[in-house]
Amino acid sequence: MIKDYKEKSNPSDIWFIEKENNNYNISYRLRKIIHDIHSPFQHIVIADSYDYGKMLILDDAIQTTEADGFIYNEMIAHVPICSHTAPKKVLIIGGGDCGAANEASKYEGIETIDMVEIDELVVKASKEYLKEISGTTEDNRINYIFNDGIKYVENCKEKYDIVIIDSSDPVGPAVKLFSKKFYANVKKILNENGILVCQSDSPIYHQKSMADIFKNLQSIYADVKVFTASIPTYPGGLWSFTMASDEKILTVPERLKGENRYVNKDILSSCFSLPEYIKKSLI
Amino acid sequence: MIKDYKEKSNPSDIWFIEKENNNYNISYRLRKIIHDIHSPFQHIVIADSYDYGKMLILDDAIQTTEADGFIYNEMIAHVPICSHTAPKKVLIIGGGDCGAANEASKYEGIETIDMVEIDELVVKASKEYLKEISGTTEDNRINYIFNDGIKYVENCKEKYDIVIIDSSDPVGPAVKLFSKKFYANVKKILNENGILVCQSDSPIYHQKSMADIFKNLQSIYADVKVFTASIPTYPGGLWSFTMASDEKILTVPERLKGENRYVNKDILSSCFSLPEYIKKSLI
Repeated sequence: MIKDYKEKSNPSDIWFIEKENNNYNISYRLRKIIHDIHSPFQHIVIADSYDYGKMLILDDAIQTTEADGFIYNEMIAHVPICSHTAPKKVLIIGGGDCGAANEASKYEGIETIDMVEIDELVVKASKEYLKEISGTTEDNRINYIFNDGIKYVENCKEKYDIVIIDSSDPVGPAVKLFSKKFYANVKKILNENGILVCQSDSPIYHQKSMADIFKNLQSIYADVKVFTASIPTYPGGLWSFTMASDEKILTVPERLKGENRYVNKDILSSCFSLPEYIKKSLI
Repeated sequence: MIKDYKEKSNPSDIWFIEKENNNYNISYRLRKIIHDIHSPFQHIVIADSYDYGKMLILDDAIQTTEADGFIYNEMIAHVPICSHTAPKKVLIIGGGDCGAANEASKYEGIETIDMVEIDELVVKASKEYLKEISGTTEDNRINYIFNDGIKYVENCKEKYDIVIIDSSDPVGPAVKLFSKKFYANVKKILNENGILVCQSDSPIYHQKSMADIFKNLQSIYADVKVFTASIPTYPGGLWSFTMASDEKILTVPERLKGENRYVNKDILSSCFSLPEYIKKSLI
């Protein structure tokens, strides 16, 4: 049972090993590395895996895959949109794979989708190699702004109905996107009934981080709600998202639009039902 | 990014590598192997892992862990029990870690819990080394019957309100526990409003298997419902369970008993809400 890794893998195989910590790894066998570059911000890899198809890997962490990327992108976009009476202006901070922008564009009532991504090369790589996620057509409501999300929000004169913080995890440069100061600055650019949503880390591996995000948002917004989704390629398989607004958040499943693969009316009604251990971790 | 495994792990470390298929492995670093025996039926290992505490591993597949075993055991027991008006007699097929029996024993109204496990040594190992799951006290309503579940059901003269099929996956000797014939035999030992529940494999890695179980049960029972739970140490992180009855299945959250760590009233109300890709796979 306990084998050295090299004994059981063919030495000619290529594997991507995602190391969550020193005690837990997930290994994916790859068909090939399609794209491998260093941008000014990070190491960008697109790899083709046997089980999950093409993957976007930033600084050794899987961000999205052809097989399960739809889950994250649908949940981070449709849940807040279906919680707003009539969203017209959407801001996405991050979201370089363009999946969240694509999901938002399923709503005809949305007039503008501003996508502020620091790393143009992630967008370029996704548009070239990950069309299943980034989409094949250009929607002229989507404006690409290659800038630092922190600075953009600080200096922004626009107001938005929905702000989607689709960032990498709260380690390294993304830490500021999880700070109270940033959440307060987002509030200044939200319309009165506007909604912020962010990915809020793993309820399994980073429960404290998830709870901190929840509490930070609670200190600034009147209503804060956590929802989860099962995402196979994220460590532990379960991921959390947090929504915040100064008005009571009411998600209306009937507002759902689009041909979706994960989200449906049942999921919109049930995604806020948290297991007991998650509920307790948020107290 | 792409490294040979041996480069990054200390050669003196022990790891358990769960190989889901040739393309995907999950590796857990271990503190030590506590128990390692071959029973007449299988290879039984209890290992102490850094991230998930003690683990029961049968024939190289993780069955349950100290850290997340409660999720599976609570869901396979409480959901059917809360779907029955007044269950008195429970039969568990398999369930060697004794977790499902423990959960069932939280209901005072339940008078008898017959547990038919083929491998006495799994029960013995769990009772000795996995007390967090198997429980620390003996409940005299639990009867251990060390026998083949197929034969037990074929020859059984008793009738049950709930039959929990807590088996390993449908490969090798467990295959028969997923057959139409077995499901039909279970029906003969169920009371009129009795409920069968089984673990029904991974919606990510074994969608066809899950769909086959659903369809086989539908051919025999009047009402069949699938529910899911997020279980970090099962490949893909999401697991399915299927309930079947000849009466309409109505789960009543208010019936829930016990101090539970995963299941609560919200989970009982929402666990049947399936993502679109799972719904489609069951059509």
